Amino acid sequence: MTRIDLNSDLGEGFGPWAMGDDVSMLSIVTSANIACGFHAGDPAGILAVLTEATRRGVSVGAHVGYRDLVGFGRRNMDPSSAELIGDTIYQIGALQGLAKAAGTTVRYIKPHGALYNTIAQDPRQAADVIVAIKAVDPSLVLIALSGAPIVEQARAAGLEVVCEAFADRAYNADGSLVSRRLAGAVIHDPKPVAERMLRMVIEGRITAIDRTDIRLEAQSICVHGDTPAAVNIARALRDLLLGHGIELKPFVHG
Amino acid sequence: MTRIDLNSDLGEGFGPWAMGDDVSMLSIVTSANIACGFHAGDPAGILAVLTEATRRGVSVGAHVGYRDLVGFGRRNMDPSSAELIGDTIYQIGALQGLAKAAGTTVRYIKPHGALYNTIAQDPRQAADVIVAIKAVDPSLVLIALSGAPIVEQARAAGLEVVCEAFADRAYNADGSLVSRRLAGAVIHDPKPVAERMLRMVIEGRITAIDRTDIRLEAQSICVHGDTPAAVNIARALRDLLLGHGIELKPFVHG
Amino acid sequence: MTRIDLNSDLGEGFGPWAMGDDVSMLSIVTSANIACGFHAGDPAGILAVLTEATRRGVSVGAHVGYRDLVGFGRRNMDPSSAELIGDTIYQIGALQGLAKAAGTTVRYIKPHGALYNTIAQDPRQAADVIVAIKAVDPSLVLIALSGAPIVEQARAAGLEVVCEAFADRAYNADGSLVSRRLAGAVIHDPKPVAERMLRMVIEGRITAIDRTDIRLEAQSICVHGDTPAAVNIARALRDLLLGHGIELKPFVHG
Amino acid sequence: MTRIDLNSDLGEGFGPWAMGDDVSMLSIVTSANIACGFHAGDPAGILAVLTEATRRGVSVGAHVGYRDLVGFGRRNMDPSSAELIGDTIYQIGALQGLAKAAGTTVRYIKPHGALYNTIAQDPRQAADVIVAIKAVDPSLVLIALSGAPIVEQARAAGLEVVCEAFADRAYNADGSLVSRRLAGAVIHDPKPVAERMLRMVIEGRITAIDRTDIRLEAQSICVHGDTPAAVNIARALRDLLLGHGIELKPFVHG
Repeated sequence: MTRIDLNSDLGEGFGPWAMGDDVSMLSIVTSANIACGFHAGDPAGILAVLTEATRRGVSVGAHVGYRDLVGFGRRNMDPSSAELIGDTIYQIGALQGLAKAAGTTVRYIKPHGALYNTIAQDPRQAADVIVAIKAVDPSLVLIALSGAPIVEQARAAGLEVVCEAFADRAYNADGSLVSRRLAGAVIHDPKPVAERMLRMVIEGRITAIDRTDIRLEAQSICVHGDTPAAVNIARALRDLLLGHGIELKPFVHG
Repeated sequence: MTRIDLNSDLGEGFGPWAMGDDVSMLSIVTSANIACGFHAGDPAGILAVLTEATRRGVSVGAHVGYRDLVGFGRRNMDPSSAELIGDTIYQIGALQGLAKAAGTTVRYIKPHGALYNTIAQDPRQAADVIVAIKAVDPSLVLIALSGAPIVEQARAAGLEVVCEAFADRAYNADGSLVSRRLAGAVIHDPKPVAERMLRMVIEGRITAIDRTDIRLEAQSICVHGDTPAAVNIARALRDLLLGHGIELKPFVHG
Repeated sequence: MTRIDLNSDLGEGFGPWAMGDDVSMLSIVTSANIACGFHAGDPAGILAVLTEATRRGVSVGAHVGYRDLVGFGRRNMDPSSAELIGDTIYQIGALQGLAKAAGTTVRYIKPHGALYNTIAQDPRQAADVIVAIKAVDPSLVLIALSGAPIVEQARAAGLEVVCEAFADRAYNADGSLVSRRLAGAVIHDPKPVAERMLRMVIEGRITAIDRTDIRLEAQSICVHGDTPAAVNIARALRDLLLGHGIELKPFVHG
Repeated sequence: MTRIDLNSDLGEGFGPWAMGDDVSMLSIVTSANIACGFHAGDPAGILAVLTEATRRGVSVGAHVGYRDLVGFGRRNMDPSSAELIGDTIYQIGALQGLAKAAGTTVRYIKPHGALYNTIAQDPRQAADVIVAIKAVDPSLVLIALSGAPIVEQARAAGLEVVCEAFADRAYNADGSLVSRRLAGAVIHDPKPVAERMLRMVIEGRITAIDRTDIRLEAQSICVHGDTPAAVNIARALRDLLLGHGIELKPFVHG
């Protein structure tokens, strides 16, 4: 039986400010990337979403980011290795503490925003994040962009890596994501989003933006929940996958 | 053989700003209360001091505080229970992660500044901190002000509590600390500081500010390291205790 | 012709997080209390709302608060006088700079949240805020809670004070606000909210929660815009006032 | 009579953390670049240093930086134009408010750290800072690195620009600063530092690191005050300049 994991970024409110519909998304996804306080997430809010994830049996991972709250971790930064290692360990540890209190365990790491994009390509910052993960718990799995250099770098360093696809993003013929600055980069219609992901799960192939057919290997699909439309796309994808007998399951187990 | 623990607040720099002489203090104390990032301490700096503490065999605890960097956690605040519980767990977890990376383990919790003073007396905030500690790890020891209501409250809740004395602070006849606003509250001369602590360790008694002789029970002595004079006081105390055959040892072991 | 001012708290997003419907509220109110970055508000977002306020001819004031982003300035704090004076001047100055860039001028000060409530009663913190306002610009008007001690304190210190009423809050017989913890503290129905404010504007009287009829003097009415329902209440109030020939006008002019 | 300005970065403490010897430096320099809270500086501390600068007749400027407290504004960032414009205006305005309260006026802008280095070369971020300065007060002077592209860019945009030399930094033959990563980049001996700056003031020439003689035009010299040794260098420079009849004077007057 074919299976796949669905992951989403949750716990991204801060104090009085909400973001996305965490409760709905926890009924859809199998893995929840939880903000750790540096790009978003306050401890009380993080604890609440962890508690709900535990109740629903959703696997949780640390969504670590740059220390840039106002920029939501989306701006490039050049922390030193000591800073990036320290910041990454700090965030993982903080989430582990809150997860313990919520009755669950942090199973994986998915870097966020500018950090995610930078370490996909930049071996120095990638190495810092890998060192940090191994220092806290070498059994933590890293979610990384399918096809990016960090996948091999992290595996060579001894980490287990899970590759992910982005449900609503167009791909170039070389397997990279179409830049958000280009037309067609984001797909807004639930039906084609769901159908191409179904094909990817079954065949390991996807149609690139230039209509060529490419391989795309992923053990997890990233879906968004920041708008009602995004939640609908995620739900449509879930329903289509289940309707075709695909098992939805976290890639790591409790 | 009589023994006592010496504890001090360390890791209280932030980014480019240093505070105190952590390396000297780690050669004096047996327990290091490490800042957790909310009142002071950045991850890279915390990791560095944890690594040095590990190298020297100094026991480490989480010096949790209010989320008030500019006020250094010294200003009273009224967080909700959800906020205080979340903030406390978050800080402990973050320090646990960094301690793991440094090859050591967080053994105890010593709240900082306004939080320390508030929970000594305020049962609601005390209960929040106790709940948080138990949620992360019920075997963590709490350092509290000798004689304060929180000592019994925490013990009744099942926590192990270690009482501490302040080496350079004058005591009232009822065992409370003389307010810093009053003359004579802080003792600046190394010799009397060391001698009264020696007597406390041996006899469990101390002379109050009104010259009465009172009981003071403590398993740990808090010393400061924020100025060269403070480091000298701490060293004088250590030397006098060792010279009288007192064993200096962490109250909790690896 | 009778006239009144309508004020509301705007610019309270932060980075990626929105709050309330600023554009709708700017079509309703005559004075906009703009967040200054300490409890909410990032510079780019503040500049955008100031620019829109300028375009619509809405008067702007500095909504200064405690330095507590995660707590949204709603938690009690005890800053020293030096801290509170410095923080208040800093926020006013920052908003003046952004207002200049937006082509407008800060006309008044309305403290926020816990600071608003504290200085209404606490003469020390009130004095700090008054000193700060006078140090920046003694012609700035202070918006304060009608009937609170700070009204006289600020006037005695030479500040012009405008008293405000809260459109959707119930009043006690002594003119104070019914605590939010009590039933009936907040009125959710647009019609009674609008009608009691109309009567207050015309007669200077309002019905207290115990059905007694009390005096309530106010030159401005505070309305909220954080939910669609709140925006509807504000619009209903505006429409009723205009329908009865009340002029809606800022209490301070450009 | 030949004259020059001496400038230094002051007010860079934060809450409990001090940095440098502001009082000594205010007896040496003629222009004080005051931190604005984003890379360093809390309002109460900024107000105190502004008050002392006013008492001593030292000219003050806004030392604006990236919003990165833990990194002290020394890490590269890529804020959007809206963010950088907003952040710059906010900081200038905040300092103007505090300066007003201290009885002085912000006369100039000197960007800090990574922002200073970035805008020296990067026309987009330079344009954002220029737009921000002009939006608050087009009469504000910009201090920039002698010879850098921003000098002409800012002048073309209508700003007055003052070029500065760095007293203790070695120069390349093309007039650029020797990278801090190379040996000999920083000169630590007070005597050569003072003598080469004296020659620069009188002749407009300096010896580059490769012993060639180059032109270096500057109306202000930047000196540091973060260590006792740095203060001594600054004092030695001041004494040598005064001893040779050079007038020390702010480039902008009250």
